[in-house]
Amino acid sequence: MATRAAKPGLAAGSRELSQWLAAFERYLLRAVRERAGGPGRLGAAVRYAALSPGKRLRPLLVLAACDGVGGEWRRALPAAAAVECVHAFSLVHDDLPAMDDDDYRRGRLTTHKKFGEALGVLAGDALLAFAFEELTRLRREDVPDARIVDAVRRLAAAAGAAQLVGGQALDIAAEGRRVNAAGVRAIHTRKTGALMGAALALGALAGDADAETAERLNDAGVMLGLAFQIHDDLLNAGSSLAALGKRAGTDAARGKATFPAAVGEKAARAEAARILHAVDTAIARTCERPRRLRLLIEATARRER
Amino acid sequence: MATRAAKPGLAAGSRELSQWLAAFERYLLRAVRERAGGPGRLGAAVRYAALSPGKRLRPLLVLAACDGVGGEWRRALPAAAAVECVHAFSLVHDDLPAMDDDDYRRGRLTTHKKFGEALGVLAGDALLAFAFEELTRLRREDVPDARIVDAVRRLAAAAGAAQLVGGQALDIAAEGRRVNAAGVRAIHTRKTGALMGAALALGALAGDADAETAERLNDAGVMLGLAFQIHDDLLNAGSSLAALGKRAGTDAARGKATFPAAVGEKAARAEAARILHAVDTAIARTCERPRRLRLLIEATARRER
Repeated sequence: MATRAAKPGLAAGSRELSQWLAAFERYLLRAVRERAGGPGRLGAAVRYAALSPGKRLRPLLVLAACDGVGGEWRRALPAAAAVECVHAFSLVHDDLPAMDDDDYRRGRLTTHKKFGEALGVLAGDALLAFAFEELTRLRREDVPDARIVDAVRRLAAAAGAAQLVGGQALDIAAEGRRVNAAGVRAIHTRKTGALMGAALALGALAGDADAETAERLNDAGVMLGLAFQIHDDLLNAGSSLAALGKRAGTDAARGKATFPAAVGEKAARAEAARILHAVDTAIARTCERPRRLRLLIEATARRER
Repeated sequence: MATRAAKPGLAAGSRELSQWLAAFERYLLRAVRERAGGPGRLGAAVRYAALSPGKRLRPLLVLAACDGVGGEWRRALPAAAAVECVHAFSLVHDDLPAMDDDDYRRGRLTTHKKFGEALGVLAGDALLAFAFEELTRLRREDVPDARIVDAVRRLAAAAGAAQLVGGQALDIAAEGRRVNAAGVRAIHTRKTGALMGAALALGALAGDADAETAERLNDAGVMLGLAFQIHDDLLNAGSSLAALGKRAGTDAARGKATFPAAVGEKAARAEAARILHAVDTAIARTCERPRRLRLLIEATARRER
């Protein structure tokens, strides 16, 4: 079965982004193999969940934000790994039988299908804890402790009940019900926006940016997440259409709240474009050297499923 | 149904420990109500899980360790709440159907029985994330950022795959199998020892102790957790005997690995006493004013189910 990793990703067409992506993959592999392990099959489950194929958009955003504020991108690698581990944690738990009950993700068995439900829960838990341990490794990159504490606060808030976990709770509660645009926005802002906001903020903090810059990039990232999710929903709607009916694995097919379903495809497309323009403007204004971060965001907007 | 909270707890007989316990309960209630909430029923599930009745041994250890190294105990309240939230997270996830499948804990419905399995998983996730957010509030107590980063590192490591979560994985794998003393020790050290170690270390860090003192108190806490668990297993074995046979809710009854089962009650009792003596010696040597911490540990050793 083909995996996503084989496709040209977000870094295609940019030598620098390709270099970052390769460096990140090496860093993550080593971090998870050497430091995220546990006894018995738990270690294997954690590695399976953390190293699943993906676009690595969030870690690339971390590195690009660090670069954007004038920092050396390599110093942000522990923060990039932390954000990716929180993302992986959320996917593993979202796939559980009590939640979305998915057997496959990107052509591979989900973690709980491969290792059993108990290890699915525990691998997710371990990844969430590991994210914070990994953040403290920013110390080795000479990131000041004050920035690390800010990063911990932001990542914890983005992952917690008010944001990522809260978004999943709303998403489950909305399943099968008709949700209006405000309701979809409340879910997407939490489920996707919060962690993308944290990705940009953490990158900025790793680049030793001040709290105000981190806050502005956080807000831009939250908007980016919203646009990203609308774009995803549009691509899914297209797939559903192409398949002339329900297609397993798309949110629309299982009665999930989506933006195109709430406001129509045309309005959704316009909203995504409007948000992306606002994000681009905010980044251009906030960053010292926004080029590569803007490039990455442009690639995100262009991407296909 | 009677709850544990009504019984005289670990603080009975000590005016100071009673005062700490009352202050902690107030702090935790406020922290959870004001800062740990989420949308819809998730907020209620998080509060239910975090504010469940308990002895509050771990947070009291945090405050006592802070006091022990010469710190002002009140400054350690955010760390005490963080440790209690990690403990609450682990109980909620351990009770899930895929794990121990418990319907009741201390006379109340378990979180997933009351709120459904999805919110059980998510409430646990939220509590784990909240613990780290709460740790960063040590800043408001003028704890130096360097100590906070150390505290994050220690709490994350204690909660993660190598320790707390790893212990649960081992525990599940051992269920129904005969486990020798080394196997039981491997489980207890992770499931109970690691977080008690973190409790003492975090208290020390909140009291601005250096890394070496925190490390020594961590080691003492890990041992204390082991003694605590053996003591618990002995009390459970006693209950089983008293009930003339199997008693629902005890680890022995469900074929879990326990120390008395592995080495016999007499040897288990001697081992617990030996460990507690070593803990007491370590604390007396490490702490500037060990009186209240030793008092708390003595009360722990005396306690009944």
